[in-house]
Amino acid sequence: MVSHPPTVSGHIVAIGGAEDKTSELAILRRVFELAPQDSDEVAVIATASSIPEQLLPCYEAAFSRLGASQVHALNIQDRKQAADADNVQLIQRSGVIFFTGGDQLRLTNVLGGSATLRAIRERLRVGAVVAGTSAGAAAMPSTMIYNGAAADALRKGAVNMTFGLGFVRGMVIDSHFLERGRFTRLMEVGASNPEQLGVGIGEDAGVIIHPNRILETIGPGHVIIIDSRDLASSNIAELAMGEPVAIENMILHAMVSGHGYDIDARRYLVADELNAILAQGQAR
Amino acid sequence: MVSHPPTVSGHIVAIGGAEDKTSELAILRRVFELAPQDSDEVAVIATASSIPEQLLPCYEAAFSRLGASQVHALNIQDRKQAADADNVQLIQRSGVIFFTGGDQLRLTNVLGGSATLRAIRERLRVGAVVAGTSAGAAAMPSTMIYNGAAADALRKGAVNMTFGLGFVRGMVIDSHFLERGRFTRLMEVGASNPEQLGVGIGEDAGVIIHPNRILETIGPGHVIIIDSRDLASSNIAELAMGEPVAIENMILHAMVSGHGYDIDARRYLVADELNAILAQGQAR
Repeated sequence: MVSHPPTVSGHIVAIGGAEDKTSELAILRRVFELAPQDSDEVAVIATASSIPEQLLPCYEAAFSRLGASQVHALNIQDRKQAADADNVQLIQRSGVIFFTGGDQLRLTNVLGGSATLRAIRERLRVGAVVAGTSAGAAAMPSTMIYNGAAADALRKGAVNMTFGLGFVRGMVIDSHFLERGRFTRLMEVGASNPEQLGVGIGEDAGVIIHPNRILETIGPGHVIIIDSRDLASSNIAELAMGEPVAIENMILHAMVSGHGYDIDARRYLVADELNAILAQGQAR
Repeated sequence: MVSHPPTVSGHIVAIGGAEDKTSELAILRRVFELAPQDSDEVAVIATASSIPEQLLPCYEAAFSRLGASQVHALNIQDRKQAADADNVQLIQRSGVIFFTGGDQLRLTNVLGGSATLRAIRERLRVGAVVAGTSAGAAAMPSTMIYNGAAADALRKGAVNMTFGLGFVRGMVIDSHFLERGRFTRLMEVGASNPEQLGVGIGEDAGVIIHPNRILETIGPGHVIIIDSRDLASSNIAELAMGEPVAIENMILHAMVSGHGYDIDARRYLVADELNAILAQGQAR
């Protein structure tokens, strides 16, 4: 039996990295607009980054410009700080929880099993937005990629994975996807287990994961879907480590702003279809 | 009515670049073994390259090692030399005609409409091997890519195409495919006309195009197939230049050495299926 996380009412926004932080703010504006009515405060978590002091002021300025009453730059550099009651309280006050880029393994290593992470999950469940860019996006699913060969990741073992932050199930998220040519990473993951959807997010693009598990693409870039569930054959189980993986039949979509994807029905949604489904969801 | 080139009896070998020229020679060995019985001479054409004097000795040494009785390094730097009767005669004597890498636009610009090119097509028709690596592979179809945005080529107009050398129809070939993350180039081409197969060849990998239009993958790398013929929808025709292209439903395969693809039946062939079909072809 598959164990599902409890139903959430909040939105998740995964961003491919390099989103505009200074001019139009197209993606960050959508993130902020999804905040629940009970809080317009924003918590920014730069734990993934080795240069938090450079990143935090950008996000503080951006969210302030968008109308946040307060932007909390959380100081979480180690597991002790991740257990800190003050940080938990700041999360509990925030309607938007935003993860910056950096190294997703730092995120999970520092936050995994912490009081802060439990508080973030609870905020998501009751309606807050959880958003992240780059490493902050990659870490969102139950399982994440944290390293992969740059040139040809379609070799057995070329992609390194571990447990993610567990905000969403049934998918793996990769960022900087078109710019760094990461198609082979999601192909290897899809061959290893075709049940899981591959979501590759380009720079200055993002996906909103609505509570009804509909993806909505935002921003000027692309979101690529690699759907392996009709995989016809692959040699991956028979190979030695490092040998090239063969793949017969994956399905490829490229979504642009306003287009969407129904994760469970495996259906591409053009703008009219997406809008109709999202309107239904709101009417319920 | 579609106009088809006359039936050919020779083999085409398209190589993704960076093939081994010094140790195992896996790919170049297969090229040489496909030479017809009437000639074991090799013609090497480095017209695409800006450094022919560096490339030609490598290929001369490799093909000599493989057993070529003579390796002709053709001196074709301009259209006058492409019309030269001595060069035509060397082509007519050769069982293998090999195109080096470089810039595919130099290849077509210098050879297009020339007596040399006509002689190569005639040699292919009667049984010679025509092989090429990198730019030499990209130039082989009726239509070729000669430039494309590196980061995100899935923008209207981001891929530049023109007529190729016309050795094979119904496909576009891209090289250095996994290493340079070129998936978006073939996706844009597929959206622009879903009839044409996208063949993306990785480094130190190649495809043999058999006379019966079966592809066979060779070498330690990958060959990626992007089949757009079931494209469900795309916005490409409605966009302004530079806007992001949406794509619903392309089919993706990754082939490894010994696997194949039936171009016209659109069928992936695992090793047993490929061998059965190739054995049939030889029995005829």
